[in-house]
Amino acid sequence: MDGNNYQGSETLEKHLGHQEQYLPLNHGFDEFFGSTNCHPGPFNDKSKPNIPVFRDSEMIGRYYEEFEINHETGESNMTQLFIEEGLKFIDEQHTAGNPFFLYWTPDATHLPLYASNAFLGQSQRGLYGDAVMELDSGVGRILDRLRDLEIANNTFVFFLSDNGAATYAKSNGGSVGPFLCGKETTYEGGMREPSIAWWPGKIKPGIVSHQLGSIMDLFTTAVELAGLNIPQDRVIDGKSLLPALLKQQVDPEKAIFYYRGNEMMAVRQGLYKAHYWTWTNFYSEFKHGTDFCPGQNVSGVMTHQQTNRTDSPLLFNLGLDPGEKYPVSNSSRIFKVVIPSLQSVVDNHKKGLKPGVPQLNYCDTAVMNWAPPGCEKINKCLPIPESKPYKCGWGH
Amino acid sequence: MDGNNYQGSETLEKHLGHQEQYLPLNHGFDEFFGSTNCHPGPFNDKSKPNIPVFRDSEMIGRYYEEFEINHETGESNMTQLFIEEGLKFIDEQHTAGNPFFLYWTPDATHLPLYASNAFLGQSQRGLYGDAVMELDSGVGRILDRLRDLEIANNTFVFFLSDNGAATYAKSNGGSVGPFLCGKETTYEGGMREPSIAWWPGKIKPGIVSHQLGSIMDLFTTAVELAGLNIPQDRVIDGKSLLPALLKQQVDPEKAIFYYRGNEMMAVRQGLYKAHYWTWTNFYSEFKHGTDFCPGQNVSGVMTHQQTNRTDSPLLFNLGLDPGEKYPVSNSSRIFKVVIPSLQSVVDNHKKGLKPGVPQLNYCDTAVMNWAPPGCEKINKCLPIPESKPYKCGWGH
Repeated sequence: MDGNNYQGSETLEKHLGHQEQYLPLNHGFDEFFGSTNCHPGPFNDKSKPNIPVFRDSEMIGRYYEEFEINHETGESNMTQLFIEEGLKFIDEQHTAGNPFFLYWTPDATHLPLYASNAFLGQSQRGLYGDAVMELDSGVGRILDRLRDLEIANNTFVFFLSDNGAATYAKSNGGSVGPFLCGKETTYEGGMREPSIAWWPGKIKPGIVSHQLGSIMDLFTTAVELAGLNIPQDRVIDGKSLLPALLKQQVDPEKAIFYYRGNEMMAVRQGLYKAHYWTWTNFYSEFKHGTDFCPGQNVSGVMTHQQTNRTDSPLLFNLGLDPGEKYPVSNSSRIFKVVIPSLQSVVDNHKKGLKPGVPQLNYCDTAVMNWAPPGCEKINKCLPIPESKPYKCGWGH
Repeated sequence: MDGNNYQGSETLEKHLGHQEQYLPLNHGFDEFFGSTNCHPGPFNDKSKPNIPVFRDSEMIGRYYEEFEINHETGESNMTQLFIEEGLKFIDEQHTAGNPFFLYWTPDATHLPLYASNAFLGQSQRGLYGDAVMELDSGVGRILDRLRDLEIANNTFVFFLSDNGAATYAKSNGGSVGPFLCGKETTYEGGMREPSIAWWPGKIKPGIVSHQLGSIMDLFTTAVELAGLNIPQDRVIDGKSLLPALLKQQVDPEKAIFYYRGNEMMAVRQGLYKAHYWTWTNFYSEFKHGTDFCPGQNVSGVMTHQQTNRTDSPLLFNLGLDPGEKYPVSNSSRIFKVVIPSLQSVVDNHKKGLKPGVPQLNYCDTAVMNWAPPGCEKINKCLPIPESKPYKCGWGH
């Protein structure tokens, strides 16, 4: 099945951190069901451990073992499990009279694709479309539950994605519509996603805001909603979205910085975006079939070399040109006005930056999911190989 | 202004026919305001006549002369004129107690772009976006009028476009979203457009139908709505859309034939589309800057040569692959089942075809708008050059 021909370059050593000290209950959560990684796997062999699924801080099984995904048919009830867990959590908090925060992160639509029997073959878009339909149904059931419990008017729901469509997955990934390239890149197809905010009685339904934002803004938004003050002893990147959500105000000064690894690749403010670096992926990776921009070719904008444009950034007016096809001429009046203005935004941003120790440079097979917390209780511990850290190739 | 750098290859000799025998009042219409051509023009000189604007069967002026479009600012009140004419027609028919058919065809969004003062600079999308906003406002005013006159429940409104986005116009044309290439081609970007049907009380609002259709279906739909019978003495290409519109039924057998000039380039039935010929535009045209597929490159699918694929058509599953990027392998089971089935649809279609005399092969400067009917009354006749028909280059 196409859906399982996953040849992406993600390595299992990365992601959120599955070691005990990084698990959600050590970071403010009271409950946890799910996994700290997506579910690509070795599937049948033990050369790498399958990804564990946790309840709270203990694993309760592994993908492809206790949590089945059928490679041949694409059938799995994982999304249904995530839906049920979400609904149960809401019911329990409601019964106890608690306010609650549910961070609902099903992993469907990530490769390898799956959907439950009721959704298999139901979309025109193949297994990817089936998985999207099932997620959509899950969101609908969660909203229905909030309505049924009569707490909808007191619940703020924000729906979003962590990145643009996985274009390298071809028909098994999403669509970037009019945008350039996809996930892994800092072109619009990789970074720009719509989001949906829902709060009956507070957020006007059916309206569109052009406010730029990022996931980091949700922290600040939530702190403000809770009536607390934003910490003043450090730079907080997020800015509250409440003016946009509640009053349809747009902050035109709000800038978005596009990072890839440790490098700031681009900046956007208002309709203007300047690329300081351009890069799709290495030609060596591309020629082996990993294409972040299938069917697209904008010469001089898409580059297989990591190309430094700092001396004369590639500037786009995303209003006129959402597809980043027609750079603004660097001899134009607009360029001469906009670039210095964006540069001062970047300077200000970099001034406040305290570089941390990069967390993604080193890989170590020993830190994979051999023996996660709880494995001994269910007899799912695997022998841990010797620790041999090595510098990872940063392919994306 | 960018909007006026119109270098498309459309020739003024073509289009609907501005000679007296082709004017709307000789083809069933009772009134006419507008033009039989779009408005590219020579603008200031008389090497070619500017396009006339008619009322009924007589010209009342010309674009860029009596009907102003400011090249520098992009300002023109043409769309407002079209809106006012539409509203006036509705009012008059309503007052007289007549049923009516309004075919409302403003020419804004075609190059060279324009918008009226109230809309100039109002969109994020430049002059093209301004023009779209003004059209949108016009549609809104027409629907409001139908509501105000309390005839909305008795009025069938169908909104559509004659072709996909003019991608060759770069930022001054529309977007094809996820589709391949644009106007002039038989890839999805050239031929596939959504349409909107509105009929309060009869057509359920807010639903989506995947029924394939074409403008030809509106004839048959209108005949059926009027309670008349479809003529049986000839093949009628259109099929009534009423089952889709009123009962949410989809006819999966309905096929669409993609023509370019006199050649059937492709066929679609259900989710499958087979290209019998592929062609973007001649390389000679492309290298001079006319690009129907800017930023796109799907090798083997986009061809600058007119490429005959009849022996082994290029097959796409448009459900899985709306962007026509991943041809279905011609050794696959699907290919072997679908291609013969599509071929029989094509055979059946061609069996019923009675080739006419091609109307687009010959050009003649003498038939341009030198002296349209009515010109003498307003002293706008120009001397007609000698008739010298020549074979036109069919650039698109």
